[in-house]
Amino acid sequence: MSALLVTHLPDVRWLCGFSGSNAALAVTAKAAVLFTDGRYIVQAKQETRGARVVIAKKSALKEACTLLESLAKKAWFDPEHTSVAALEMARSAISGKVRRSFFAALNKPLVSELRMVKDADELRLMEKAAAMGDRVFNDLLPHIASGIPETDIAARLEFLARGMGAEGMSFDTIVASGERSAMPHGKASRQRVARNGFITLDFGVILNGYCSDMTRTVCVGRLTNEQRAAYEVVLEAQQAGVAAVKPGVTCAEVDEAARSVLRKVGLARYFTHSTGHGVGLEIHEAPRLAAGQTLELKPGMVVTVEPGVYLAGKFGIRIEDMVAVTQRGNKVLTKAAKALIAL
Amino acid sequence: MSALLVTHLPDVRWLCGFSGSNAALAVTAKAAVLFTDGRYIVQAKQETRGARVVIAKKSALKEACTLLESLAKKAWFDPEHTSVAALEMARSAISGKVRRSFFAALNKPLVSELRMVKDADELRLMEKAAAMGDRVFNDLLPHIASGIPETDIAARLEFLARGMGAEGMSFDTIVASGERSAMPHGKASRQRVARNGFITLDFGVILNGYCSDMTRTVCVGRLTNEQRAAYEVVLEAQQAGVAAVKPGVTCAEVDEAARSVLRKVGLARYFTHSTGHGVGLEIHEAPRLAAGQTLELKPGMVVTVEPGVYLAGKFGIRIEDMVAVTQRGNKVLTKAAKALIAL
Repeated sequence: MSALLVTHLPDVRWLCGFSGSNAALAVTAKAAVLFTDGRYIVQAKQETRGARVVIAKKSALKEACTLLESLAKKAWFDPEHTSVAALEMARSAISGKVRRSFFAALNKPLVSELRMVKDADELRLMEKAAAMGDRVFNDLLPHIASGIPETDIAARLEFLARGMGAEGMSFDTIVASGERSAMPHGKASRQRVARNGFITLDFGVILNGYCSDMTRTVCVGRLTNEQRAAYEVVLEAQQAGVAAVKPGVTCAEVDEAARSVLRKVGLARYFTHSTGHGVGLEIHEAPRLAAGQTLELKPGMVVTVEPGVYLAGKFGIRIEDMVAVTQRGNKVLTKAAKALIAL
Repeated sequence: MSALLVTHLPDVRWLCGFSGSNAALAVTAKAAVLFTDGRYIVQAKQETRGARVVIAKKSALKEACTLLESLAKKAWFDPEHTSVAALEMARSAISGKVRRSFFAALNKPLVSELRMVKDADELRLMEKAAAMGDRVFNDLLPHIASGIPETDIAARLEFLARGMGAEGMSFDTIVASGERSAMPHGKASRQRVARNGFITLDFGVILNGYCSDMTRTVCVGRLTNEQRAAYEVVLEAQQAGVAAVKPGVTCAEVDEAARSVLRKVGLARYFTHSTGHGVGLEIHEAPRLAAGQTLELKPGMVVTVEPGVYLAGKFGIRIEDMVAVTQRGNKVLTKAAKALIAL
């Protein structure tokens, strides 16, 4: 009999509900056993469904491996989320004669692939998280003005999210104003919002473990004609990307749908990242919407569509929605306005 | 010539300053080159010191490995922070004949060990972060009362931190009240603070990438005699742990200093985790203050001391300070009151 060793925490949570920071889940066709440590005695009991819970005395991983050896002839593991040292430790729990052959690397990330397609409960939760993101954005707008430090805007944003019941933020909130908007990952800094220019807000809330993700770029003061034109073309690219999302379309095709709009006006070289990514229990998960990605979208997948342009030393713009693939097309989960908002 | 491949992000940041989410740093005796991707063109240039920056076209990791092969005969990597799949990808960038032998696993985490001892600049920053944590705690106290949801308390806590200039929180803020205080990792939930009982607050702020970490357990309403007695003994254990922190003492000895106080009164079996951990660019880093850890403390190390007791279905208590090892003893960086605060 073959077995599966699951140690990637979002996979563990998805399979059995446990959300702690240390876990090894041993799975065979007949049994599932979750190993964790003494910090989680109460929590593991409360959260875990469909697996027996064992509080490991020393190493959750090693105890899981010892059990696996008693139940199976071979155990598969996920090489993407298993460190070289963890694999060595897992092997050290297996008896000498089968040690080298007992663990085999999955040739694809089995659980991550299953997690790509969300069921109805997951979709409801993600829709709720996305709607909370929209409300946060709308309630935040009156608090944005020139002269305010980016960190104060992030503080207000996160306070609003928490007040609405968010468990936390999906990632470090990005508030990038003025020249900093040219940094795709410009975490909020002490810099104050300039008199004129863009402010890019990229953030997400977590609800029952599920992440939302959205980006809007707003402006204060005056924009140049170049800035206005760039905003319009990023919006057009984003809408083209969203329109391309439907079952049977490849991830590369969605990327190209957005990118080609920017290419026509010579801005594609300033679009320096991929068009989007899957989202769920992890803020970045499969699939990737990028050139060369031949995976076809399926109903139930939730992806972001987020083209941007970044002109170093000048400005940047990004617009991002969360989009669920439906039977016939798609449903945009984030509904906040995308027309340029001037504050 | 030997080389080092660094991919663990806190290690990369510590070595060259770059704080982005994708990086591979190739280091030889003569050169250091940082590989990242198109999202970080501006940021990598701004942040990186002592290394040349290359924006990789496809894979930062693979391009780093190609360079390493041209510069060195062998490259060391950190098996703790390199996935099995990443090692395979790194090898795939190396030419056939040396592919299997080119990469060798470090037998100890070289950069993590260097990072254990903080220099004067790091210590100043961590002291500042710890002091900010103290101010957050003190300013938060008036906002804690029975009937308030834990998430609202977390929201206020994080808003205060952001308002003081925190870049973010070190980890998901723990606000665990009533029976939930028996969960060592009880992230803030929608539960309202009960009329009587403990509230455990465990949180940290990030300043220039450096994390603070502190825990205080306060109470509302009435406590039982058992609860009061348990608080006093946890405090005594925590103080004994702090007192044990000095150069030349092993991590296991600090753990035992705290644990033995609880053992004397029969509470050691409710202290289900280790006594503390190193803190710095990561919230949990080396060393570990736990049984069996023979590493000796050195001046410049910063560790937490955080014993607790957790009685499932009843209550829990934890008290935690950040403590820097000095030439002669230690300096407690978190200074908020530890005598029981009744709100």
